[in-house]
Amino acid sequence: MSGTTQRIAPCSARAFELEPGDELVVVDPEGQQVADLVAFARPGLVEYLSSGRSIDYASRLWLSTGDVLYSNRSQPMFEILDDTCGRHDFTLTPCSRDTFSIIYGETEPRPGCEGNLANALAPWGLDVDRIPIAFNVFMHVAVDAKTGVISVEPPLSRAGDHVRLRALMPLLVGLTACSAGQSNNFRYKPIDFRVERADA
Amino acid sequence: MSGTTQRIAPCSARAFELEPGDELVVVDPEGQQVADLVAFARPGLVEYLSSGRSIDYASRLWLSTGDVLYSNRSQPMFEILDDTCGRHDFTLTPCSRDTFSIIYGETEPRPGCEGNLANALAPWGLDVDRIPIAFNVFMHVAVDAKTGVISVEPPLSRAGDHVRLRALMPLLVGLTACSAGQSNNFRYKPIDFRVERADA
Repeated sequence: MSGTTQRIAPCSARAFELEPGDELVVVDPEGQQVADLVAFARPGLVEYLSSGRSIDYASRLWLSTGDVLYSNRSQPMFEILDDTCGRHDFTLTPCSRDTFSIIYGETEPRPGCEGNLANALAPWGLDVDRIPIAFNVFMHVAVDAKTGVISVEPPLSRAGDHVRLRALMPLLVGLTACSAGQSNNFRYKPIDFRVERADA
Repeated sequence: MSGTTQRIAPCSARAFELEPGDELVVVDPEGQQVADLVAFARPGLVEYLSSGRSIDYASRLWLSTGDVLYSNRSQPMFEILDDTCGRHDFTLTPCSRDTFSIIYGETEPRPGCEGNLANALAPWGLDVDRIPIAFNVFMHVAVDAKTGVISVEPPLSRAGDHVRLRALMPLLVGLTACSAGQSNNFRYKPIDFRVERADA
């Protein structure tokens, strides 16, 4: 199994299909860059990757090697085979035009991961209301266990860190190089990925 | 403004509409009982109460008095006007048939909050795939800030504790008396609620 490494330009998104057994490798080429990942079960695209199910079944907010990512119908969508970073978020929705306005006070509209995912997934008939909470690869969200206060910190990923996920059903995947300053230490960088096909 | 208190029987759900300015009071009549709350913007019912947006904008996992609950489109859906308990969850999906099988090892199928919500919302044309992560009123989920390990603890609510929410747009609401043993200390109890109409 091998695949060509593809680059997601800063502040953009890509969408692609996976078959069961395919392995998706998400790489942070420069370090401290988040990639939002969403997934839908083909062919219906109604069943989607669910943070709430995955966290509940793992009994852990932060998932890593050996953990399974579940759909809203409690079906296994991915297994995390390898993770050289070890810290990702699964609680926050993709950044959006409104995020930048509400949290950052930005006045210039940018589509954010939500808009970029919606555009990338549009050829499959999905719109922005279908974008759920993402598996935010390399995103570092710290939690105060007493107050519940969260803070978005610079990612712990260093250049070359990767996460390898095995697809467990036919999937449509959306993947971004995140546009939110807090989540990449205000240095907007690319994300690399490759798909290693089970039948290659 | 006043309203008749209605009882949600143990392990069941109700659905009802709110107009802007209406106040919903959710009461734990016996103590240590969770109520899963989901909401959709009328009339379209495509826009829904979003944990990921609400947590992001509050920068806190656990929301209470003064906090605003946002939709996936970043529109304010509810304001929490009063909260005598102070601890609720907003990270986990409603319990379901699969939850009971995967987490509890139950062999007898029970619909759980997810199935109960889907049944209650069916007259408005919503099905089970439209049930997102709920605002889990009175649910006590503890987090280990170092490992991310979560544990579902008995609620901190005592008999008579309540949360008062003001609707900020026309809403369809689903509300349960939760069916998951962990979240009510394995004593399945009712939930009370009343709607105080803005125009009454």
